[in-house]
Amino acid sequence: MKTKSIPDIIISRLPLYLRSLQRMQEENRKVTSSQELGERLGISAAQIRKDLSQFGEFGKQGTGYNIDYLLDQLLKILHVDQEWDIVVVGAGDIGSAVARYRGFKNRGFKVKMIFDNNTSRIGTKIGNYIVNDSRNLIDMIKTNRIKIAMIAVPAVHAQEVAEQLVEAGIKAILNYAPINLIVPDGVYVQYIDPSIHLQRMTFYL
Amino acid sequence: MKTKSIPDIIISRLPLYLRSLQRMQEENRKVTSSQELGERLGISAAQIRKDLSQFGEFGKQGTGYNIDYLLDQLLKILHVDQEWDIVVVGAGDIGSAVARYRGFKNRGFKVKMIFDNNTSRIGTKIGNYIVNDSRNLIDMIKTNRIKIAMIAVPAVHAQEVAEQLVEAGIKAILNYAPINLIVPDGVYVQYIDPSIHLQRMTFYL
Repeated sequence: MKTKSIPDIIISRLPLYLRSLQRMQEENRKVTSSQELGERLGISAAQIRKDLSQFGEFGKQGTGYNIDYLLDQLLKILHVDQEWDIVVVGAGDIGSAVARYRGFKNRGFKVKMIFDNNTSRIGTKIGNYIVNDSRNLIDMIKTNRIKIAMIAVPAVHAQEVAEQLVEAGIKAILNYAPINLIVPDGVYVQYIDPSIHLQRMTFYL
Repeated sequence: MKTKSIPDIIISRLPLYLRSLQRMQEENRKVTSSQELGERLGISAAQIRKDLSQFGEFGKQGTGYNIDYLLDQLLKILHVDQEWDIVVVGAGDIGSAVARYRGFKNRGFKVKMIFDNNTSRIGTKIGNYIVNDSRNLIDMIKTNRIKIAMIAVPAVHAQEVAEQLVEAGIKAILNYAPINLIVPDGVYVQYIDPSIHLQRMTFYL
């Protein structure tokens, strides 16, 4: 599968296609079209066909896409045909909500452990997890060979935590702290900051 | 200020510039440059200069940007030189975390009320908020003239909630439910789905 030179913008849309297809599969649907996907996602049918064609031939002209097959291929392309363990750093409101979040099921992810540096939180239970001491962060991540982490600590500590995670071998970070992280090449960061999303809309209001 | 034909991709970067500038202001900094902003954000200095030039002249060649002034202008451009009230729908883990989230302070937003349809949650306290009955959603939003909402209900209910919000006059929705919403023109939606962000990274792992 040639995936070397696929533009990042195309990759960023694949999870949306995957999510829509998973919903269709839950609805016991068998076949869809770029038109239908486009309407569900607010993306043009032509764009969807072009995006998917980067990875091979998934549908025949006029007959649409086989949902099970396309879904299977997208799971493989995005490497979520396996389940990735995730570590959560920060056991405050956001970290706790993320650790208990049931939406990771069937999406390729599983929270494996959660850390905090606050002695009043260490040892307490969040859902099925016991909050671990951040002092053991690097060792435990290395031992469990975890590659993905979420940062849910105050902004002022986020860069320091990111550096520990990188040292521990983490390759992908989802950062809930409202600050940009500086990480080495080969480590990927995505950001969730509700204020940023809101400000992208208030411009238009 | 001419903002009519600014591409959406430029608008989407302005909140990042604003956030970085706010952090610099907290650090008591007075002047910055497109180079420094670029390094903090992983965006090229040329791109930043080009983006900002869409809105006027904010810096002089060689002297950089006055942080207070540029920040002030960005607040105005993004319409967050005022505080927007927000309604949260869904008082589960995510809704509760969002309602208590202190990161909205100084970013232009304030959670005003929270709703749920579950009788075991209605009337309970989350931070400083009493959970309201969803049956009063439309009336209370109209009465308070709220324009921005966050959806934190299960995916299966999200579209129905979105339609109620639109009926109530909401113009911007931040959707935490892992499903695409269909809304009329003139209503803006942004999405937060951690699995989508994670899948954008696993492709590269």
